Amino acid sequence: MSTWNIEYLKPEFLTPVPSDIAISRNQPPKNIEKLAEEVGILPDELDLYGRKKAKVSLDVLKRLGDVKNGKYVVVAGITPTPLGEGKSTTTIGLVQALGAHLHKNVFACVRQPSQGPTFGIKGGAAGGGYAQVIPMEEFNLHLTGDIHAITAANNLLAAAIDARMFHEATQADDALFNRLCPKNKQGMRVMSEIQLRRLDRLGIKRVEDAEALDPEQRRRFSRLDIDADTITWNRVIDTNDRFLRGIEIGLGPNEKGHTRKAKFDIAVGSELMAILALTTSLADLRERISKIVIGSDKSGQPVTADDVGVTEALTVLMKDTVRPNLMQTLEGTPVFVHAGPFANIAHGQSSILADKVALKLVGDDGFVVTEAGFGADIGMEKFFNIKCRYSGLHPSAVVLVATVRALKMHGGGPAVTAGTPLKPEYTQENLPLLEGGCDSNLRKQIENANKFGVPVIVSVNQFASDTEAELNLVVKKAREHGAFDAVISNHWAQGGAGATDLAKSLVKATEKPNNFKFLYKLDLSLEEKIATIAREIYGADGIELSDLAKQKIETYTKQGFGQLPICMAKTQLSLSHDPSKKGAPTGFILPIRDVSASVGAGFIFPLVGDMTTMPGLNTRPCFFDITIDPVTEVIDGLF
Amino acid sequence: MSTWNIEYLKPEFLTPVPSDIAISRNQPPKNIEKLAEEVGILPDELDLYGRKKAKVSLDVLKRLGDVKNGKYVVVAGITPTPLGEGKSTTTIGLVQALGAHLHKNVFACVRQPSQGPTFGIKGGAAGGGYAQVIPMEEFNLHLTGDIHAITAANNLLAAAIDARMFHEATQADDALFNRLCPKNKQGMRVMSEIQLRRLDRLGIKRVEDAEALDPEQRRRFSRLDIDADTITWNRVIDTNDRFLRGIEIGLGPNEKGHTRKAKFDIAVGSELMAILALTTSLADLRERISKIVIGSDKSGQPVTADDVGVTEALTVLMKDTVRPNLMQTLEGTPVFVHAGPFANIAHGQSSILADKVALKLVGDDGFVVTEAGFGADIGMEKFFNIKCRYSGLHPSAVVLVATVRALKMHGGGPAVTAGTPLKPEYTQENLPLLEGGCDSNLRKQIENANKFGVPVIVSVNQFASDTEAELNLVVKKAREHGAFDAVISNHWAQGGAGATDLAKSLVKATEKPNNFKFLYKLDLSLEEKIATIAREIYGADGIELSDLAKQKIETYTKQGFGQLPICMAKTQLSLSHDPSKKGAPTGFILPIRDVSASVGAGFIFPLVGDMTTMPGLNTRPCFFDITIDPVTEVIDGLF
Repeated sequence: MSTWNIEYLKPEFLTPVPSDIAISRNQPPKNIEKLAEEVGILPDELDLYGRKKAKVSLDVLKRLGDVKNGKYVVVAGITPTPLGEGKSTTTIGLVQALGAHLHKNVFACVRQPSQGPTFGIKGGAAGGGYAQVIPMEEFNLHLTGDIHAITAANNLLAAAIDARMFHEATQADDALFNRLCPKNKQGMRVMSEIQLRRLDRLGIKRVEDAEALDPEQRRRFSRLDIDADTITWNRVIDTNDRFLRGIEIGLGPNEKGHTRKAKFDIAVGSELMAILALTTSLADLRERISKIVIGSDKSGQPVTADDVGVTEALTVLMKDTVRPNLMQTLEGTPVFVHAGPFANIAHGQSSILADKVALKLVGDDGFVVTEAGFGADIGMEKFFNIKCRYSGLHPSAVVLVATVRALKMHGGGPAVTAGTPLKPEYTQENLPLLEGGCDSNLRKQIENANKFGVPVIVSVNQFASDTEAELNLVVKKAREHGAFDAVISNHWAQGGAGATDLAKSLVKATEKPNNFKFLYKLDLSLEEKIATIAREIYGADGIELSDLAKQKIETYTKQGFGQLPICMAKTQLSLSHDPSKKGAPTGFILPIRDVSASVGAGFIFPLVGDMTTMPGLNTRPCFFDITIDPVTEVIDGLF
Repeated sequence: MSTWNIEYLKPEFLTPVPSDIAISRNQPPKNIEKLAEEVGILPDELDLYGRKKAKVSLDVLKRLGDVKNGKYVVVAGITPTPLGEGKSTTTIGLVQALGAHLHKNVFACVRQPSQGPTFGIKGGAAGGGYAQVIPMEEFNLHLTGDIHAITAANNLLAAAIDARMFHEATQADDALFNRLCPKNKQGMRVMSEIQLRRLDRLGIKRVEDAEALDPEQRRRFSRLDIDADTITWNRVIDTNDRFLRGIEIGLGPNEKGHTRKAKFDIAVGSELMAILALTTSLADLRERISKIVIGSDKSGQPVTADDVGVTEALTVLMKDTVRPNLMQTLEGTPVFVHAGPFANIAHGQSSILADKVALKLVGDDGFVVTEAGFGADIGMEKFFNIKCRYSGLHPSAVVLVATVRALKMHGGGPAVTAGTPLKPEYTQENLPLLEGGCDSNLRKQIENANKFGVPVIVSVNQFASDTEAELNLVVKKAREHGAFDAVISNHWAQGGAGATDLAKSLVKATEKPNNFKFLYKLDLSLEEKIATIAREIYGADGIELSDLAKQKIETYTKQGFGQLPICMAKTQLSLSHDPSKKGAPTGFILPIRDVSASVGAGFIFPLVGDMTTMPGLNTRPCFFDITIDPVTEVIDGLF
């Protein structure tokens, strides 16, 4: 694969750095068709969605099947403050450096943000400063409709579950069977393929005419017999709507008193989003959807989306979502924005498909930089143990983002709270606090990365108030604690030019082969896998399973899901389960409150504490500040 | 405007006529970019969404401002059977005839179908047989995301209402005010523009620093004081989910017992969809959104979307929806698919903007054919009295679709029920029943059209079982009852070639000026307007208002909404309120059960009987038959 002939954009760098939206608006993007051509995407492989975004066909994978993959880099972070430490910004800054400054073929692969929170708290998720995906309005609103398609598919399954329970509850066996398998014009009850698959699972021989089934077979086929108390499939909506966290449904007069407690999650919390992020083709998407477990029947057997009959319908609704969405950075390098599963109850990674397509497009001298949500103890661990396991891709390096601010917090600094001014410890030089953070959290996160056998480069994300002594201390300490290298990076203020040292160091790190390995084998028991992560990555002495967790583990193991990898649902604000414990806590037992399963996506997720799956709106959401000029369509106040 | 140089498609006509999806799939569409160029849309005015659909910029209206509008034709129908009588198919067949056969510049403007029902009962809404919009998968699934954008906007307002009530209920005056108007870095409480507009409405003088407001002013500003029992703004979802027809919300522990009964409607039932269909620009969209009334406060005053603070946020979410979506017919003529408000609680018309853009593109020798949902007593009446009133467009002709089947029903034939075989009266020649239908329902619908001063052409939509004597009888009777002309049309089997007689007759009808007038003046009282429609269009002796309806009329009149036009929510299965009364019933009083308002859209809707706003899934929805080939992406069983 030769080096791309690509026109880099030259944003005007201003001091002080303007607002993100002002920077985005001041730099017109290239026509996306032009960028696609520059990076070797054929016209037939491109579906435009306006002029600034496009979907890329998976045909690329077949066409470039013989091309060697590029280097595969994950950006993770130390345990952050609630303000975030700049992983997205580093990801974008790094690709701007690799591309526009070192002239490497490079793709960034990032997650699509949920639209809901965008209208709650001001701020987009497209990076920041001079390291951004542009145009940020397009990035943050609707994109190409993938989340909307997931919402539609998720809710069709939810509606089908409740409608089916209702019809089963209100119809006698005969009526139910006759409606599910009506006679055709020839007088035969011909089952559809998805109904025949249910026969297979029930161990009933396929029949040409369902009339041949005996009454007991008919009953078993017709009655999913879902135990309403076990349903884990929630409805979703891409809106911060706290009043849907707990609802009762079926109160309409025509539902005849068949009410049920239920809830809505935010759309990106749908298992379908996790599936999209982990799938490897449309056929695989369909396969994973068919395996979704929505709950158990009254005899304790899992009930799947295929049993409900919606596998193909959901695949139809999601068929366009598998193609990654092409956008660009502020300096005109390519970005795939694709999938955005929740990092708290899912694995929080962008899609395998985007990474795979990008790795082929950049070729073996090129780079693909992908971001792992949450702190490295969660995001990086899941990237390796779940995402790389399913993709089969071999990572070349970890970039670990650290900030002086967060490290001071880990060294014992006062609490950092969103919406409150920072204490002087954070705005003035304080080497002792900083050193404490380096020797605890930074050290542990570097050690964690090294456990996977992949070189780690610490990127010190420079803030205006950081002193030279502080920045240099982090670099020195990171190297001492086992990082391949540590580099100060100032992409927020300088774009790719501010991250060229980081980029050069990364190139070096990826030049030699590494010894990537998973942390645990899948054939360990679920409990052993959870305990391994808790001990090795979090520094716990062990785990303590609640009775509920024990029972769920037993059920999932019995149902045949014991071989799945683990997706921990834990706070990212501490290596432990307690957000107030900073640094690198030791001497604690990790409590597992509950355990759930996303069988379609392919993981078991233990719940460490309560995880919110539906954000709310505060008293003064940012929508009060939003304006749109109806002539120019310029939006203000949203980001 | 000169005649377009357009490549017409030549579908292969087979006998017997294959399934709709087979016909659609056998005819590859032109690249939509090519069609856009053919009909005079500039590249800068086009945003592609893949290769088969595109959005067209409203800049066309400005660029072609001096071009005289084309002829404006509405397709309506007699009172239908539950099976439908082919308005969409006639609309598409007619433009295929006008375009591909008479070589006129012509656009069809049709509604976007709701995606929800698509997965319940098999069948698309893109016409049928050889008169279709293609490709039908694209037409029926997602399109360009307009309905998804409406869903997001609708639900943001809903979430904001409940969150606001919660915050008002749980915070003291001071805390609430201070959060709504926080101090900026300079220590000033600067209100945003949308907050200043609320001051205007409260009659409080605008202030630079909200600190200047006295406690009573602060309280009035901060407390919307919504009366929960009056809230008419429901959440929506584009899924047939009957269990959301009646729900209780706020049952989560963090909502502290602030529960409330609520409901979901199907997405196209959102007032925002009606607004999209009636708006004339992005600025007008924003204006209409600001006026949406979501309920009343405890003193009986209307509370608006602007009071809640979401006007601009909703406009941002919907900004792309105002651009009409370009697709094509089976014979390669252009179609706008744009907006699809419910015909039962809203006005059931495609968008004013699509019609306006199309009327400029076709030029003064050209034609725009638009479809009115439901029977003519509802659809046509609303087209004239609501849509044309807001657009200012002057209609040139009405095409009234009639079928032998429906006319026999009106003449006293047995009941026609979906899913049950037709009785012999409908499959064998029966002139007496047919004549009875012609002399009742057909006569009345023709007379109704003539009341608006616009020529009406009856299109007899030919079915395979119709005899020549039957078809000729309808033509003869229609002319006797005052139609400008009546023509037999066979577009379903023959495409545009089957509708050329209809098209020629239409051209003649539109050649002479007409005397279009509204049925009622807006300055009549709400009750008088309702009674006028009931008497003049339905043939009622008068109306009877329930106590609730009387009280609502009084409230809306007091609130200043008495000057709005009327959007009747009535069954389309009879000219009366009773679906079993066929023909042209007389001697009845129309009962008005309730009255509601869509102030943003701009109409009052009286409820005649119960209107379902959320469909359900039956025991065996069509999703059991759906398949998708993961390699070719060919979908079966959906349509």
